[in-house]
Amino acid sequence: MNKDFNYSNLKLGIIGGGQLGKIMSQKAKKMGFHVTVLDPTFNCPAAQVSDKHIIGGFYDKDKLEQLVQETHVTTFELEHVDTSILKELYDHGHKIYPSPYVMELIQNKYEQKKLLDEKGIPVPKYKNVNSKEDLKAFGFPVIQKAKMGGYDGQGVQMLKSESDINIAIKAESFIEELVDINKELAVIVARSIEGEIRCYPVVEMLFDERVNICDSVMAPARISKDIEEKSIEICIKSIEALDGVGIFGVELFLTKSGELLVNEIAPRPHNSGHYTVESCATSQFEQIIRAVTNLPLGSTKLISPSVMVNLLGEEGYEGEPFIEGIHDALEIPELSFHFYGKSFTKPFRKMGHITVLDDDIDVALEKAMKAKDILKIKGSKKYE
Amino acid sequence: MNKDFNYSNLKLGIIGGGQLGKIMSQKAKKMGFHVTVLDPTFNCPAAQVSDKHIIGGFYDKDKLEQLVQETHVTTFELEHVDTSILKELYDHGHKIYPSPYVMELIQNKYEQKKLLDEKGIPVPKYKNVNSKEDLKAFGFPVIQKAKMGGYDGQGVQMLKSESDINIAIKAESFIEELVDINKELAVIVARSIEGEIRCYPVVEMLFDERVNICDSVMAPARISKDIEEKSIEICIKSIEALDGVGIFGVELFLTKSGELLVNEIAPRPHNSGHYTVESCATSQFEQIIRAVTNLPLGSTKLISPSVMVNLLGEEGYEGEPFIEGIHDALEIPELSFHFYGKSFTKPFRKMGHITVLDDDIDVALEKAMKAKDILKIKGSKKYE
Repeated sequence: MNKDFNYSNLKLGIIGGGQLGKIMSQKAKKMGFHVTVLDPTFNCPAAQVSDKHIIGGFYDKDKLEQLVQETHVTTFELEHVDTSILKELYDHGHKIYPSPYVMELIQNKYEQKKLLDEKGIPVPKYKNVNSKEDLKAFGFPVIQKAKMGGYDGQGVQMLKSESDINIAIKAESFIEELVDINKELAVIVARSIEGEIRCYPVVEMLFDERVNICDSVMAPARISKDIEEKSIEICIKSIEALDGVGIFGVELFLTKSGELLVNEIAPRPHNSGHYTVESCATSQFEQIIRAVTNLPLGSTKLISPSVMVNLLGEEGYEGEPFIEGIHDALEIPELSFHFYGKSFTKPFRKMGHITVLDDDIDVALEKAMKAKDILKIKGSKKYE
Repeated sequence: MNKDFNYSNLKLGIIGGGQLGKIMSQKAKKMGFHVTVLDPTFNCPAAQVSDKHIIGGFYDKDKLEQLVQETHVTTFELEHVDTSILKELYDHGHKIYPSPYVMELIQNKYEQKKLLDEKGIPVPKYKNVNSKEDLKAFGFPVIQKAKMGGYDGQGVQMLKSESDINIAIKAESFIEELVDINKELAVIVARSIEGEIRCYPVVEMLFDERVNICDSVMAPARISKDIEEKSIEICIKSIEALDGVGIFGVELFLTKSGELLVNEIAPRPHNSGHYTVESCATSQFEQIIRAVTNLPLGSTKLISPSVMVNLLGEEGYEGEPFIEGIHDALEIPELSFHFYGKSFTKPFRKMGHITVLDDDIDVALEKAMKAKDILKIKGSKKYE
């Protein structure tokens, strides 16, 4: 897309039709673009708000090719995608961002870590696992991660003692030292086709310990100016190391001794950046559209502090979702309610989120926790 | 919709599929609702982002009935609608907000004015026109307005002298004194089913003199605290007088002598409230959805000052739109670009808008005016 391109004709393709694709599509439609979504699920969240839906899986080469051929630019809301056909199309000049080569690298968490390590970016101590012996190399407890396919706390587990080797992940994996974490931080980084980088504020992630899913995000993080600046510097170096174009969610550990380590990088809009919709001048979802269509990156300025809370499917329920407490929750001032339009809930499934603004981040947290207590996503079927 | 209603199933109907319907639909989809749009135009802006499109006109009783029957709640993005079938359906218990009775009253600008006048709300001096003689009653110049069907500067004209009676509007009309205007102000007012009212900040409207279309909006208006409070008071009284539910755009004249007069009221999201998407805790487009679905009204707090500029089709062009200057305009920080996805431009047609944020309203205005100079909506056909 050069300066003469008529953006009123622009056709964008998004691989993946979940909540990230949905909000990306809404922002692309805000700018008047035509959006086609590829996703296997009929009436998936993004399909409900887009111009066209190609029903197909993320490893269906024909459907991937159809999407790329029918659009001017293709991007991603997820990283678990067949990259072979995309690499072919990319090599033939089709616009696909981040490039399928970057996607392929990031798909493998071990290779991702190795690259960052080689580029001098601080990461937790890690080691490839080729045998049961390798699992013991750092002693116990230790973290074991599948190289491929992990998502939302899956493909990651703690081995507490040697006896846990029996329950070790069987797929290709690596181990990582158990870091003594003070806070988990995250930064959304945007990078343009020309290599311009813009970082969003450093945020603080809070986790649901039961399932290791990010539960809430505080923007900005309650950290010192020094830690903030170091975090931003590390994140910029990381995305430059990857040579990625688009939006990247960089997860960091701040250790109890004050060290910053990159945990992992998502090559797409990230849960820790949902807050940008209400809190920042340009949301991460609009920013990725700007980046991949060769428009100037937008301002990442924080307009108001906020706290985001994921609405996860309640334990003990599945089936058609029922939103309990919506009336009481929406009484809370400066609260924005997002519900993704998934037709089926199950325990801990991401069904929606809320973002609560307040000039005072502690008041925002208080309001958000109140809403979290009130809002429950139950289902049509209850079980014990 | 009572407290036990399952909002994850909610089906909303919107009469009208232009830019207002589009953004309303996007906000309803954000909350996970199912949206059906009624509009005669294939691929109209709102249809592109909604679940279902009923192709039909606003005076097509069968299609209006279909929309109401298929959805839980019906609302409007425009006021020029057949109200007879809607009144029947409303009387049979269907949820339609604002009620078709309110819509009917507002459709007639003369009746609207008379009601406000009778309720003690300050309005410009006005007089029904039954004869050519009536046109002369206030002397010249004088404003003549069609009672029905006016929109975007149409159906309103100035009669400069007695000789202009030849070009007077032939339809049913009334005259209004020519007010000595200092500023044109506007307030977006939300009212819930229970009668709760929330006002947005008072804003200042700037007009394109050539065609009398609102061109830019400054939020907040540069007025004294006293004028602000009086404006809010008048707007609340006006919407209570109408007994309306939903979102109302109240246009006010601030005269050179410091008087405030209600010009007219739109019973739907209003151009002067576009800024609320980026500037306020809850946009007018989400607020109407909350109001008509019986959810609590959201906070109308101004999070950041802003200036909104309409992107009108350039004079001398029509056909498929071409967005000139998009690269340079999007370099301007804190600028949000909206393009509606209309397939055809013509002179002064509303094709999109931008909203520019800045803590300093004068800086916001400067940035917005720069963007306005850069962005031109041209068309595939040029004519002299």
